Amino acid sequence: MKKSVVFPVMAVLVLFFVLSIGTYPAFTLDLLAMHEGHEMMMHGGSEARFDDSGALMKPEGYRQWVFVGGPVTPNDMNEGKAAFPEFHDVYMDPGSFAEYKKTGKFRDGTVLVKELVNVGSKKAASGNGYFPGDFAGIAAAVKDSKRFAKEPGNWAYFSFSAGKDKAEAFPTSACNACHQAKAAEDWVFTQYYPVLRAAKPK
Amino acid sequence: MKKSVVFPVMAVLVLFFVLSIGTYPAFTLDLLAMHEGHEMMMHGGSEARFDDSGALMKPEGYRQWVFVGGPVTPNDMNEGKAAFPEFHDVYMDPGSFAEYKKTGKFRDGTVLVKELVNVGSKKAASGNGYFPGDFAGIAAAVKDSKRFAKEPGNWAYFSFSAGKDKAEAFPTSACNACHQAKAAEDWVFTQYYPVLRAAKPK
Repeated sequence: MKKSVVFPVMAVLVLFFVLSIGTYPAFTLDLLAMHEGHEMMMHGGSEARFDDSGALMKPEGYRQWVFVGGPVTPNDMNEGKAAFPEFHDVYMDPGSFAEYKKTGKFRDGTVLVKELVNVGSKKAASGNGYFPGDFAGIAAAVKDSKRFAKEPGNWAYFSFSAGKDKAEAFPTSACNACHQAKAAEDWVFTQYYPVLRAAKPK
Repeated sequence: MKKSVVFPVMAVLVLFFVLSIGTYPAFTLDLLAMHEGHEMMMHGGSEARFDDSGALMKPEGYRQWVFVGGPVTPNDMNEGKAAFPEFHDVYMDPGSFAEYKKTGKFRDGTVLVKELVNVGSKKAASGNGYFPGDFAGIAAAVKDSKRFAKEPGNWAYFSFSAGKDKAEAFPTSACNACHQAKAAEDWVFTQYYPVLRAAKPK
């Protein structure tokens, strides 16, 4: 092979090599980052955010989490004095749901959001019943073995009334006690959440 | 440069070049495919799949779609003869939901899945009410201006009883007529779906 041929060929190959070093990792890492962003959203880290005082910041985006069930305990079935006179639409953060599907356990960091929805009407084209009306606030439960080491099951409970953007945990007696006594599984009322029952590994 | 140096160097570069052709696109395309799979799931394309005869294949993964509302019309509020004696947990495919948030319209290809959930109990620690029991089947509505050009609103309706993996569209009179007459918005009962009302641009 002549030098006059070898050098242009080598130049092209070296150029390709150098460009590859520059672009291949950058482009690939960009795609990896996008992919990992998705992974992180779906499979890792808790959705719970706390301020410096330990108050839970109001969860966001939960309407695109995994809906697990929505009982209704209306006033007119409780002599006008229902403790929770609304639909309770309960959502679980997707990362913890993915973990639950694998292990059947509520992982550390699990967030359950309970969105309260007023009864809007009791009669529709489909018959008599209870039909969702307007949103009336949210509550949340967070499992955290470090932050809530002293709470039974490591679960703490929070309520966000209208306009509230953070909340202190309720005292143990306010919510945890009843969840501990009556919930089917790890302080969670899975007996009313068919999506969780179906997702649990057999 | 001596030939004895040039050839090994070139050999290495050529090897790198050849390997690059083999691996770079494959690896990158794999990442692209993962990313595009996510994009397709989230932002583009309909979730509706039809067989050659035009039957809708049973939707999958809908429990991780966007829950929009869950009315209940139990038998005991309808003299034992409820047309739909269950909870109706309604989910919308995420791509169409994202579009709805932007435009306030149900895009072509929108899929709504209605999962039927039996009433499991009427009394719980939280009071009297209706509590979800077990799954009892799903129904679906699909908007498609080409495939359902003759259906009012271009909506067709399908029901999947237990074990059914595909379904023919109902005749227009069976579902579409009532949706056309009673649903608040484009054949959809948004009056009972607070998540859609809240997502609609003002």
